Amino acid sequence: MPDRPRVIIVGGGFAGLEAARALARADADVTLVDRRNHHVFQPLLYQIATAAISPADIAAPIRHVLRTQRNCHVVLGTVTGVDAAAKRLRFDAGMGRGEASVGFDYLVLAAGATHSYFDHPEWESLAPGLKTLEDATEIRRRILLAFESAEYEGDAQRQRAALTFVIVGGGPTGVELAGAIKEIAAATIPADFRNIDTTSARVVLIEAGPRVLAAMPEELARRAHADLTAMGVEVRVGSRVTDINSDGVRVGDDFIAARTVLWAAGVRGNPLGASLGVPLDRRGRVIVEPDCSVPGHPHVFVVGDLALARSADTDQPVPGVAQGGLQMGRFVGRLIARELAAPDSPRPKFIYRDLGSMATIGRARAVADIRGWHLTGFFAWLVWGGLHIMFIVNYRSRIIVALQWFWNWLLFSRDARLITGPASLDIRQPRPEADIRPETSSRTPLS
Amino acid sequence: MPDRPRVIIVGGGFAGLEAARALARADADVTLVDRRNHHVFQPLLYQIATAAISPADIAAPIRHVLRTQRNCHVVLGTVTGVDAAAKRLRFDAGMGRGEASVGFDYLVLAAGATHSYFDHPEWESLAPGLKTLEDATEIRRRILLAFESAEYEGDAQRQRAALTFVIVGGGPTGVELAGAIKEIAAATIPADFRNIDTTSARVVLIEAGPRVLAAMPEELARRAHADLTAMGVEVRVGSRVTDINSDGVRVGDDFIAARTVLWAAGVRGNPLGASLGVPLDRRGRVIVEPDCSVPGHPHVFVVGDLALARSADTDQPVPGVAQGGLQMGRFVGRLIARELAAPDSPRPKFIYRDLGSMATIGRARAVADIRGWHLTGFFAWLVWGGLHIMFIVNYRSRIIVALQWFWNWLLFSRDARLITGPASLDIRQPRPEADIRPETSSRTPLS
Repeated sequence: MPDRPRVIIVGGGFAGLEAARALARADADVTLVDRRNHHVFQPLLYQIATAAISPADIAAPIRHVLRTQRNCHVVLGTVTGVDAAAKRLRFDAGMGRGEASVGFDYLVLAAGATHSYFDHPEWESLAPGLKTLEDATEIRRRILLAFESAEYEGDAQRQRAALTFVIVGGGPTGVELAGAIKEIAAATIPADFRNIDTTSARVVLIEAGPRVLAAMPEELARRAHADLTAMGVEVRVGSRVTDINSDGVRVGDDFIAARTVLWAAGVRGNPLGASLGVPLDRRGRVIVEPDCSVPGHPHVFVVGDLALARSADTDQPVPGVAQGGLQMGRFVGRLIARELAAPDSPRPKFIYRDLGSMATIGRARAVADIRGWHLTGFFAWLVWGGLHIMFIVNYRSRIIVALQWFWNWLLFSRDARLITGPASLDIRQPRPEADIRPETSSRTPLS
Repeated sequence: MPDRPRVIIVGGGFAGLEAARALARADADVTLVDRRNHHVFQPLLYQIATAAISPADIAAPIRHVLRTQRNCHVVLGTVTGVDAAAKRLRFDAGMGRGEASVGFDYLVLAAGATHSYFDHPEWESLAPGLKTLEDATEIRRRILLAFESAEYEGDAQRQRAALTFVIVGGGPTGVELAGAIKEIAAATIPADFRNIDTTSARVVLIEAGPRVLAAMPEELARRAHADLTAMGVEVRVGSRVTDINSDGVRVGDDFIAARTVLWAAGVRGNPLGASLGVPLDRRGRVIVEPDCSVPGHPHVFVVGDLALARSADTDQPVPGVAQGGLQMGRFVGRLIARELAAPDSPRPKFIYRDLGSMATIGRARAVADIRGWHLTGFFAWLVWGGLHIMFIVNYRSRIIVALQWFWNWLLFSRDARLITGPASLDIRQPRPEADIRPETSSRTPLS
């Protein structure tokens, strides 16, 4: 064991990175472990999924972000479990070496959240969610292949299904995906196709609750709903998805035939939370103490989307947004730094400062609630764009993303329209009733 | 069958795209088929592999490039064979429909080349080559994981192997990869790591022939060799690789322990050429007539890297470079357009105009032979950069690539350092002798 106390941080998202940074001057060995070598600016993942920008534009190598912080090691590895009482972490670093374990003095778990398909794990392959760069390029692949498939399709009904996109979940991600897909179909690609009118593509946004953007003020949610409808997105609130299969989505008594279904409905805490052996909420999040520590284990903290924390002033739960993770990470990092310097100092309680929330709706429109100020339309979009650019971790990304956005905005262009990975049109299981497409079909480009 | 004659072009690389463009005003139905939805600017693939730029920066959707050409359809599909005599093409468009076939009046095969591992197909997974965007991101993944592995590795010998990069093949791709990897290790990432000195990374370039850049004038090859050596790349000419396994590379009597081996040695024609049933050269290329048609099948043409063509003026074989493909594609497209308008017109013979050749060596150095003018150093690099930017098909890419390059040059930065896909450190089969890494190892960041 090293001479200096060891602080291990699991996860290089907003919460983990901020915790590491807050420990920059601490007299400790700080180790940040992540399965990935890169931090991702998650709020813009939907822009990769909709071909507006490239993965590298909103991601940065974690060890590069922390390169000047000499007390910090970055390790690429998969953490497999925590023994909170023994203060040990189990991890697998690959190389066929199997699992190893390592001790810590403080642990900050910032492992984030993953998709939740409630009681339907079989929906995952049919309706991918959006959490990682790989998710984003997979969704991009499906959206682009859907148009390719429609262009090729001879059967009118199947062509219709190929041009139908269903997004499940009306939070910010669902709203942003729906707007962006409609925009691709209506403005970016119509001239590229010969056999289909992409402007006729149907985009359906399904929300089980009474309105979209449930976390935002009702006035803004109404505006977002109206903006989406004006763009041609079908918004269905109060609608529950009861089945997803390879032909489409069942919503109550209605079946929507759709080739592309995307999941923006539920998240749950990373399974790592369960290995702590403490109570979780129904979404798998660790219910933490006011100082973000785990009940009974004052040296183990959980921050970010994996934590169910309450702001000490309002007793309201901290929302699962970037700001929540950032603030909790910074809070815990500072708390540990202070405690290392003065072991007997009393611990503060976490207070969440709500800086507001926002969502974009297609090109150059947004809704924003910034400390009570309600912004809509183009002005809200400008504020949204400016704030997001400011927050991007990596300086170079900031400039490139700004340029790219401006360019896209000027030209309606989405230049990252690449289908990578498996390039065939089979994104679902082959249908048993599949037939060889007759060469004589009048809609076939090849006949 | 449509009323207008049908021209099918297979492949959306330089040759296929130019053939399609040359047919823009022809009274024909032009169909371009490709397995991928995008054209890739292959000469810059090595920059993706070395994390300087993103895939979307040098790729563009084929149907977008051809969107204004109303007589042209673009189809995403895999061509599986050609029946030249019956003028039919077999293809698989996915969707579980199996194979279909379609007739043509003219066929232009521009299916390109793939890697050749000579008689060692088992080397492919150990030493990937660089032909597609997927190849490039896979190579990027291996290079970046090698440094991660070295950082984590406790055993000095294995750490050394992780920091050793062997590139097989001293053509432009090999030279460019070797220079860029050395530059990453020496300039881009040293500050990111704690346990290793990345500047000590060993980059070995192995060439079987007597010199690197065999296709360029000897003076320039000598200069490139000297420039590489000055950068710290070990250049071994006249050295033949006799074995590649998961521990490294055997070169004659010498074994170089290396975790990362890249293949830039051999290419052969796409297997589709063999389905024509005409003579191929030993590299699987179709030996074409002076008008680029296939012997005995005047309506079937082969252009680009899949063809072995000879320039009618010099009788020299056309080199497998972008310019060769561009010029052959344009020649055949124009020939078909003319023949459709005037069926009895005599066919011209293809003449290759050698515009020169060039290769970059790390940051801001290159060698270039432009119509007999020999350029070296920074000036050659400027010319190289300018010409490449000019040639990039998609206008927007041109600007972004220019900005990115300039930025990289200014800051030594390589901002696309993302490990996507499988993120574990296992890029080879797990070694049977693998042991759990002891926590007490002094070099381990986690212990």
